[in-house]
Amino acid sequence: MDLNFVSLPQTTINVVYSSVDLPQLQSPYLICGFPGTGYVGKIAIDHLIQELNAKRLADIYSSSFPDQIMIRTDGVAELIKNTIFYSKASNSSSNDVILLTGDSQAISPESEYLLAEQILDISAKFNTKKVFTLAASVTGVFVDKPRVFGTATNSDIVRTFSEKNILTMNSGSVVGMNGLIIGIAKLRGMQGTCLLGETSGYVVDAKASKSILERLLSVVDIKVDLTDLEKKVKDTEMLIQTIQQQVAERALQGQQPGVLRKPDIGYIA
Amino acid sequence: MDLNFVSLPQTTINVVYSSVDLPQLQSPYLICGFPGTGYVGKIAIDHLIQELNAKRLADIYSSSFPDQIMIRTDGVAELIKNTIFYSKASNSSSNDVILLTGDSQAISPESEYLLAEQILDISAKFNTKKVFTLAASVTGVFVDKPRVFGTATNSDIVRTFSEKNILTMNSGSVVGMNGLIIGIAKLRGMQGTCLLGETSGYVVDAKASKSILERLLSVVDIKVDLTDLEKKVKDTEMLIQTIQQQVAERALQGQQPGVLRKPDIGYIA
Amino acid sequence: MDLNFVSLPQTTINVVYSSVDLPQLQSPYLICGFPGTGYVGKIAIDHLIQELNAKRLADIYSSSFPDQIMIRTDGVAELIKNTIFYSKASNSSSNDVILLTGDSQAISPESEYLLAEQILDISAKFNTKKVFTLAASVTGVFVDKPRVFGTATNSDIVRTFSEKNILTMNSGSVVGMNGLIIGIAKLRGMQGTCLLGETSGYVVDAKASKSILERLLSVVDIKVDLTDLEKKVKDTEMLIQTIQQQVAERALQGQQPGVLRKPDIGYIA
Amino acid sequence: MDLNFVSLPQTTINVVYSSVDLPQLQSPYLICGFPGTGYVGKIAIDHLIQELNAKRLADIYSSSFPDQIMIRTDGVAELIKNTIFYSKASNSSSNDVILLTGDSQAISPESEYLLAEQILDISAKFNTKKVFTLAASVTGVFVDKPRVFGTATNSDIVRTFSEKNILTMNSGSVVGMNGLIIGIAKLRGMQGTCLLGETSGYVVDAKASKSILERLLSVVDIKVDLTDLEKKVKDTEMLIQTIQQQVAERALQGQQPGVLRKPDIGYIA
Repeated sequence: MDLNFVSLPQTTINVVYSSVDLPQLQSPYLICGFPGTGYVGKIAIDHLIQELNAKRLADIYSSSFPDQIMIRTDGVAELIKNTIFYSKASNSSSNDVILLTGDSQAISPESEYLLAEQILDISAKFNTKKVFTLAASVTGVFVDKPRVFGTATNSDIVRTFSEKNILTMNSGSVVGMNGLIIGIAKLRGMQGTCLLGETSGYVVDAKASKSILERLLSVVDIKVDLTDLEKKVKDTEMLIQTIQQQVAERALQGQQPGVLRKPDIGYIA
Repeated sequence: MDLNFVSLPQTTINVVYSSVDLPQLQSPYLICGFPGTGYVGKIAIDHLIQELNAKRLADIYSSSFPDQIMIRTDGVAELIKNTIFYSKASNSSSNDVILLTGDSQAISPESEYLLAEQILDISAKFNTKKVFTLAASVTGVFVDKPRVFGTATNSDIVRTFSEKNILTMNSGSVVGMNGLIIGIAKLRGMQGTCLLGETSGYVVDAKASKSILERLLSVVDIKVDLTDLEKKVKDTEMLIQTIQQQVAERALQGQQPGVLRKPDIGYIA
Repeated sequence: MDLNFVSLPQTTINVVYSSVDLPQLQSPYLICGFPGTGYVGKIAIDHLIQELNAKRLADIYSSSFPDQIMIRTDGVAELIKNTIFYSKASNSSSNDVILLTGDSQAISPESEYLLAEQILDISAKFNTKKVFTLAASVTGVFVDKPRVFGTATNSDIVRTFSEKNILTMNSGSVVGMNGLIIGIAKLRGMQGTCLLGETSGYVVDAKASKSILERLLSVVDIKVDLTDLEKKVKDTEMLIQTIQQQVAERALQGQQPGVLRKPDIGYIA
Repeated sequence: MDLNFVSLPQTTINVVYSSVDLPQLQSPYLICGFPGTGYVGKIAIDHLIQELNAKRLADIYSSSFPDQIMIRTDGVAELIKNTIFYSKASNSSSNDVILLTGDSQAISPESEYLLAEQILDISAKFNTKKVFTLAASVTGVFVDKPRVFGTATNSDIVRTFSEKNILTMNSGSVVGMNGLIIGIAKLRGMQGTCLLGETSGYVVDAKASKSILERLLSVVDIKVDLTDLEKKVKDTEMLIQTIQQQVAERALQGQQPGVLRKPDIGYIA
């Protein structure tokens, strides 16, 4: 064996904590909003982080993220990362939360499993018992009131869906981190819930984000102001209106309606 | 070297046993029915599990399965997994069996090798000497009586094929888990047999499943009731009849017969 | 577990130092010019290595490079590699430098992270504090005076760009080693700068190389003769002129201007 | 960290020696003939193994080979493997040899590096100093007398090419195992030579095999009977004649000559 060769794993993950002293959290809920179709989950979690004035707990870097640095508006570049925030409950009857957002999901199915393990490792340090992921259910059509679908790792959670205005999924699958996080959570004795906001898939959809966030807040019994999110909902509605007018005009002119194109969304999916 | 980086393997496998105490099994046969073309092997193994009233031994989770959770009809979601069942022989002249079924095969050739190793590791705990895999031989045509082909790791097994109405393959290869499991078994001093049921490749083919199951039962000297499987065979026959009528009608109308499309089969292959 | 099986990592890196005794360097700048579009960075670094009469420090071999040997003009073949050179400052007010050039970048995003880690490990042995990568900004058009864009890991570096005639990027990303090297450098407490030379993407562009090299030399306060590089700039200008004439002639003849084809460039990108 | 999860490397290699006692070999040459275009190298090595009556030293199995078992004509199936044979010199002035042949090359660039390392590890047990790989140089045209090209890891080897009727390559690269084996050999202080037989790429080309084998035998100073190989050369010539006649007939009929199709070759490349 050639001793000069350094053996390397294919994947590395680097968790950089913001402080040496971890905060004291009481079995916080873990709530994850990964970038994905329509940025439904990410917009919801980013709003939650903002309104709860959540604090940065740790940055997660990984060789399983895209091989890029992201350039901020001030010219400073940073490796692609996921970030975990936390917020302590404002009163004893409420719940502490850990909130995950990020620039990107992992680039391969295998590395998604590994990243999910790491996120749950971090959460386990605080004795997390319940995990939520915020996802999109892509339908291809615009709707006025996006429905929210749900699946969970335990039947007692599923039974509570109807009273929270969440439609229970009864077939299919949830692909990617939103599924893996709750699936692996179950193997570790945690309970997992995935909420999916109905979205067309054509636009960044703050409307679907608001729908799932409302249901989530009801489930976890947390109150936050939604004013800023409602402004984004208005943006979404105007964008949809513009698209629908263009489609209608083409139809009037006897043209093919054409294929709706996804807008350039600036995030990395 | 940056000490903050956690080195991770590319692949993890998690075997969750149903009980701390492993059952007492006498050199059980390992019989594997992975999902694949026509679900020939999986339908056969699932029928065997049902009729033998087999007990759950272990669930196998792996980062080399697709990055999904599967949603059951009751709304509860589970990670994609393979499951091993076992059944003790009803009398001392018969054989104990270990039965493998699953939602999916591994997603890459390399991880298929690793999964095959793990399955054989589990089986080796019980001193398994003989391994069987149930596969499909895809022909592109519908047949009335599906033939069963076979290959094995040892020539003395091959010599017994003709008396069991199994046609010996003499060229080609078996791709995927059905091949790897018996190939690696041989390296460990076990004997492996792969039975392949003739199937069109266009339908979920319980008829081919019954053909290989009959040959397998003859080889391993186990008796099970086939009534429920025969009901599924009827479904397969009706589906094939419907397809053949449609093709004939198009031919009468002078149309191109078109390409047969695979039906949507609900499983993950 | 089968003990005959040798477990192997997916990736290996082999660093072969030119001498057992490492040179004495004073916090040298690390400057990287990887092969990429237009060979903008590689031509610049190769010129620097030549003019500084830099000495070979180490060759880096890796299983994450393409599976090839490169044949030299004398018939001798060598594994694809990256090579690190060094040059000690000619006077005490100047800076020592470590210079990286290579035949190829790594073949996958994950192995690019690992290679970047190794390069920074080597550089860290000499207490490197500042890292520079030389990249291309592909525009699809020919320009007379290629602009130079920049991004950095720290805002105090970004603030110096304007006085060095470097345009600050304020969005987008830098993909590949040029981004990862400075992104990971920041995690290790080093400062990173990426300079990107404007290039059409159609030709090996020594003109863009000269633009970034001039800015780099100004930033790192090193002087080198540019005569040889200016000869290559003339080659680039003649090549561009030829292409533009051909396009103009086709336009005169009423033909489609056609798609500009990348020239065969002899390097491995 | 979840202790239930078993961490697995992505790649495993299993070397099964034919005997516990390794043979006594005196710095044997390692000669490799991997399956590749025209099976030029594999036909040559297989002929050498036959004529030297070489003995099986070891089988190499790896998760980086295709996920298949190969079925022999007698119905027995085996994992895809590479096999190393050895032959002791018939007299003291000649050389011992280690000969590598196989069903397949590894499936990814990274695993080719790892496999090459393992093959050289085995060879190093016997103090091998010189390594040869037998490859194809694909030209797209049929030739009467296939030329043999060469490249080597050391210039003193290259200097001997002309007296052996080997044309020295002076640019380009050798892709795959034939390149990696000699490239890595050099890093370990061994000398490597790659001989490439000129072949059309359209047929299994025993004629090119004979050309490189003749040059190799001259270089390593070994004599073997070529009668059986010459029979295969006749088969190749007849196949080429048939193809050329068909092309000529189509030309006479005013048809497009069409694209030459590779014949179905029965091996796994």
